[in-house]
Amino acid sequence: MTDLYHHPLCPHSRFIRLVLGEMGIEPDLIEERVFERRRDFLVMNPAGTTPVMVEHEAGPIPGPGPISEYLDETRGLGLGDRRLLPDDPVGRVETRRLLDWFNAKFFAEVSGHLITEKVYKRFMTQDQGGGAPDMDAVRVARANIRYHLRYIGFLIRSRNWLAGDRLTYADLAAAAHLSSIDFLGDVPWAEDETAKTWYARVKSRPSFRTLLADRVPGIIPSPVYADLDF
Amino acid sequence: MTDLYHHPLCPHSRFIRLVLGEMGIEPDLIEERVFERRRDFLVMNPAGTTPVMVEHEAGPIPGPGPISEYLDETRGLGLGDRRLLPDDPVGRVETRRLLDWFNAKFFAEVSGHLITEKVYKRFMTQDQGGGAPDMDAVRVARANIRYHLRYIGFLIRSRNWLAGDRLTYADLAAAAHLSSIDFLGDVPWAEDETAKTWYARVKSRPSFRTLLADRVPGIIPSPVYADLDF
Repeated sequence: MTDLYHHPLCPHSRFIRLVLGEMGIEPDLIEERVFERRRDFLVMNPAGTTPVMVEHEAGPIPGPGPISEYLDETRGLGLGDRRLLPDDPVGRVETRRLLDWFNAKFFAEVSGHLITEKVYKRFMTQDQGGGAPDMDAVRVARANIRYHLRYIGFLIRSRNWLAGDRLTYADLAAAAHLSSIDFLGDVPWAEDETAKTWYARVKSRPSFRTLLADRVPGIIPSPVYADLDF
Repeated sequence: MTDLYHHPLCPHSRFIRLVLGEMGIEPDLIEERVFERRRDFLVMNPAGTTPVMVEHEAGPIPGPGPISEYLDETRGLGLGDRRLLPDDPVGRVETRRLLDWFNAKFFAEVSGHLITEKVYKRFMTQDQGGGAPDMDAVRVARANIRYHLRYIGFLIRSRNWLAGDRLTYADLAAAAHLSSIDFLGDVPWAEDETAKTWYARVKSRPSFRTLLADRVPGIIPSPVYADLDF
């Protein structure tokens, strides 16, 4: 049994949901509003962030990096050529480099700002830092996303998937972050046609279906969000 | 032969220098001023950050996470009970959780601000964003560091080392970040006596010696920086 403490629009949680989907693991999803700083949640993850995965044998595992490494160590070899962290050292380096790129850099420059300003702040009290979105942060994120889309396009013009010949954690992380902000209608897909075609490929995988069905009270997903032919 | 592109006060570079020291690997150190955005360096690491490690067989490996995972995968088993990423799944989760804590959270809240404002900006041209330190950022970092010291103290009061019984990557990452800002005299050691005692233990390891000998033009290290009995 696998529990996943998550938020529907948290990009790091979405990355782990995609990974679990690709591995054929169906977690029990428990929605966590991290800004409420629930005591029992902070015991599991003192950093106070989603996702946290709990498996009976291993106790709580916090954060997209530790969870994805744990899943590769416990399930990776059994996946054969569907393994999401490649077998060879060079492929592992490239996959982890891009994991950092999306989970840290893209989050700091794009998805973190947009989800905080346009989603979390709507559900926070004033004491928790809630209120109207800071439009400066939103504008910076909307400007930054363009070079990231071009970078995805650049990589895909010389490779089948982001880190090489096969689908890896890198594709799932990139698609997870993009999907959160695509929900909000903030991805300028016209910026790079190759990036858009790559995203359509990831989006049409069965592991993506539960993400496309997500709903958040008070926020209407963008018309292209669940459209496989956007 | 191992090359390491680094900056003497970059905390992520210092983490890898400590790891290499513990493994008995002596890298050729090449100083990189990332704000110059040197073309050949950006080819090795498009994110434009230090450290980047180069080994002939593997090509460039960028970032503290990918480098430390690579070193564990290629050297870890040979280290026996001096392995820096524990063998057991629970120990690996805890070590990686704390690696993220220091390399991402502590860097974002403390060491990144202080090194950028007080060190890098001194060597940047005006076009590169150089100039006087933003004292608001410095003040925030100096306030944030206090709870991190108390968190280290809290962990060490129930464990021998940060992630458990043995020295791990977690201790080396935490000590690396603290050492960069200790150079600047910005660690309020009186905040937590247990944290200070733990740091003295890490600081007296042979792997720490080259860090204590570092000098940076125009910046005088704090009087306690190289003192093992501070």
